[in-house]
Amino acid sequence: MKKLFAEFFGTFWLVFGGCGSALFAAGIPNLGIGFAGVALAFGLTVLTMAYAVGHISGGHFNPAVSFGLWAGGRFSGKELVPYILSQVVGGIAAAGVLYLIASGKEGFAIDPTKAGAFAANGFGTLSPEGYSLEAAFIAEFLLTFFFLIIILGATDRFANGKFAGVAIGLGLTLIHLISIPITNTSVNPARSTSQALFAGGEYIPQLWLFWAAPILGALLAGFAYKFLLQKNDE
Amino acid sequence: MKKLFAEFFGTFWLVFGGCGSALFAAGIPNLGIGFAGVALAFGLTVLTMAYAVGHISGGHFNPAVSFGLWAGGRFSGKELVPYILSQVVGGIAAAGVLYLIASGKEGFAIDPTKAGAFAANGFGTLSPEGYSLEAAFIAEFLLTFFFLIIILGATDRFANGKFAGVAIGLGLTLIHLISIPITNTSVNPARSTSQALFAGGEYIPQLWLFWAAPILGALLAGFAYKFLLQKNDE
Amino acid sequence: MKKLFAEFFGTFWLVFGGCGSALFAAGIPNLGIGFAGVALAFGLTVLTMAYAVGHISGGHFNPAVSFGLWAGGRFSGKELVPYILSQVVGGIAAAGVLYLIASGKEGFAIDPTKAGAFAANGFGTLSPEGYSLEAAFIAEFLLTFFFLIIILGATDRFANGKFAGVAIGLGLTLIHLISIPITNTSVNPARSTSQALFAGGEYIPQLWLFWAAPILGALLAGFAYKFLLQKNDE
Amino acid sequence: MKKLFAEFFGTFWLVFGGCGSALFAAGIPNLGIGFAGVALAFGLTVLTMAYAVGHISGGHFNPAVSFGLWAGGRFSGKELVPYILSQVVGGIAAAGVLYLIASGKEGFAIDPTKAGAFAANGFGTLSPEGYSLEAAFIAEFLLTFFFLIIILGATDRFANGKFAGVAIGLGLTLIHLISIPITNTSVNPARSTSQALFAGGEYIPQLWLFWAAPILGALLAGFAYKFLLQKNDE
Repeated sequence: MKKLFAEFFGTFWLVFGGCGSALFAAGIPNLGIGFAGVALAFGLTVLTMAYAVGHISGGHFNPAVSFGLWAGGRFSGKELVPYILSQVVGGIAAAGVLYLIASGKEGFAIDPTKAGAFAANGFGTLSPEGYSLEAAFIAEFLLTFFFLIIILGATDRFANGKFAGVAIGLGLTLIHLISIPITNTSVNPARSTSQALFAGGEYIPQLWLFWAAPILGALLAGFAYKFLLQKNDE
Repeated sequence: MKKLFAEFFGTFWLVFGGCGSALFAAGIPNLGIGFAGVALAFGLTVLTMAYAVGHISGGHFNPAVSFGLWAGGRFSGKELVPYILSQVVGGIAAAGVLYLIASGKEGFAIDPTKAGAFAANGFGTLSPEGYSLEAAFIAEFLLTFFFLIIILGATDRFANGKFAGVAIGLGLTLIHLISIPITNTSVNPARSTSQALFAGGEYIPQLWLFWAAPILGALLAGFAYKFLLQKNDE
Repeated sequence: MKKLFAEFFGTFWLVFGGCGSALFAAGIPNLGIGFAGVALAFGLTVLTMAYAVGHISGGHFNPAVSFGLWAGGRFSGKELVPYILSQVVGGIAAAGVLYLIASGKEGFAIDPTKAGAFAANGFGTLSPEGYSLEAAFIAEFLLTFFFLIIILGATDRFANGKFAGVAIGLGLTLIHLISIPITNTSVNPARSTSQALFAGGEYIPQLWLFWAAPILGALLAGFAYKFLLQKNDE
Repeated sequence: MKKLFAEFFGTFWLVFGGCGSALFAAGIPNLGIGFAGVALAFGLTVLTMAYAVGHISGGHFNPAVSFGLWAGGRFSGKELVPYILSQVVGGIAAAGVLYLIASGKEGFAIDPTKAGAFAANGFGTLSPEGYSLEAAFIAEFLLTFFFLIIILGATDRFANGKFAGVAIGLGLTLIHLISIPITNTSVNPARSTSQALFAGGEYIPQLWLFWAAPILGALLAGFAYKFLLQKNDE
């Protein structure tokens, strides 16, 4: 049960901090934090929670990560569903509080025909810079693949494991530095779902991509790590 | 006594570095550090002092942190008052030196009707982006709640404790990346008090929120960590 | 064989993440990540992969690094060629995927007469800020020299080796903070080759500099570290 | 002798990287790294060299640091002069190479009547934002004081010493985030000297402040740490 609270709080923080920095602080003229600041914020949500509650739940905060760790043989299949439920509920709760705070500024409104509405992920006309479905799928697939290679590698028995939280958190920062313009960056179906529910409109029918591409990339990484990279015992 | 000096110097550095970067460097056209630079500065004040004097006093530098650690059973109640006094005095001393340096530039003046005057915290008309009292309260409450979850978790007996200074410092950076536009970010009553005294005007009657919301958030986090997350001995 | 996969994935990630952030996110008005964001991205590719696969291959991801480690007596000469092949192939594969994603945005085109085309390295008219061949050579030589001093020093037997991934990764960030305006920053022949192949035009005949200067700087650093800095056993 | 090479290379890197990022990359429209990028660069020069050659020389790279460590009882007085000579020579050599590279861009010129010429430090009319001599002195004094508190604290026998390089390097980043607008940030007489020699003009007669204020701040910190903060043996 403590594990599920840890995943709930961790995913809440990921969505609140990452999407919150995008909503409140990214676009302010001259002083705003821009995409680089949002990238840093997403990474730091994971870095901070990895050291805070990683020893409790393992610190996934992301359904694709849970799938990838399962494929890599590091996570039990029977915990998949409760973990993913905690993550999705935590993300939606965070989006709710973000909505509440955002509403505290006069003139706040969500336009579901615009890219990046309520920090939601999208492609085509809903991609921040107009990238196609194909480009979006490749980017989300490949970036989640490498996210899981980083996670599986940095937590490997032979690795310098105490730094895993730094490597994984800053890895998520890196992923955002690359791809916010493409899809607003998901690599995390719980994050995408939480925002799409509030953004509405076309964001809902686009949600499938932000479940399919990250989970497929994560699964492939789990197998790739196991068969191509992992050192064997001797 | 050394503990109180450590808290004094640490809180001095937090206010001098964090608020100083905002006052001197944030808004310079083209070259200025913006909100992201200020966020980094606040976090690095805590990161640096955590490794410098954390082994002396525990490295709170913030009355809300002292309250939260007490609620989480990590800090003795009879040290609360001297710690908080050292923090408030350290913060005010830093604000005094900031005022001295700022006065060394021609045309320096504080306008207490403007948001962010002398890096002070505010809501409503004194919120950098015009967020309401309610939004400000929720943000300060929730962000301090998570700040304490990070602190309690990262310093837990079962955690990878040597990284606590990194996680906590960068956690404060993250908090600023999210919320400078909302309240100019407090989560620290000593920091708010030190700036309000120099900003004056409406900042003084607004100060209650920056004591109440952070301390309530911190207390709740202390209890939440103890009952929902903390692993038991066995 | 696992070593070569590790070098392939690591160099793929370096080129995909570093050059990808430059291509997709650097120049977007107001929100773009700028040269500082690209610098951070390059460094984080190495930081993340150092902790993920460093325990497998040593984490070179760069022919100049392999040469420098060989000169410093830390890497076997007979592994040089397979490592470098894996690195170059990994880099080119990443450039291919970058091309695929970039093509998913309408109006995408590469202009080989412009500096920074497809994130390629150049000097003279192909230097981002118009630096001469001589300036470019000195910069690439010197920066790779210091990159290898950092690598050799941080992984020295007497050093605090667990932090090597942080020091080396952020060292590459630092190198980019200095020199993107000069050559678009290489210090890595595999990275330069991968981009020049797609940029074409004058970038191909300029490629020699981005092999010669980094490798010479790295070799000199290997010898300098061994003879001027390295502590002896006793 | 190896210690002196380490101090030479370290200070060379500090000046080349820190001042180089300011000269080449800070002010480029839209894409430039700004003061925040320069602040990061300065800090990373120290972070990288601390892990690379800190185990050889202790990693001072700064006459004020050598003085402060001596005052704190951590550094032998008879090594002061050779260390400082190595630092100053390393800084000047780096400034020479910076000049060489900068000359490789058409139209390069140094205007010694402008603030920040060749990344030099100054006050009054040579302060980037026009701060007075008094403000400059207080800032340099106080920031070096805290720099040394961080250094002495983070390397204390009771501290979590393996993180000292992170805390000290990022501490220098923080110092620059605060004070580039005030004096272009020195806290390091070797850095100031190296740039003033190339900037010339009024920068030479202003150089005294960038020796006096940092060294006084460092000495006071050495004594303050020893008498107010340091835990005793038992």
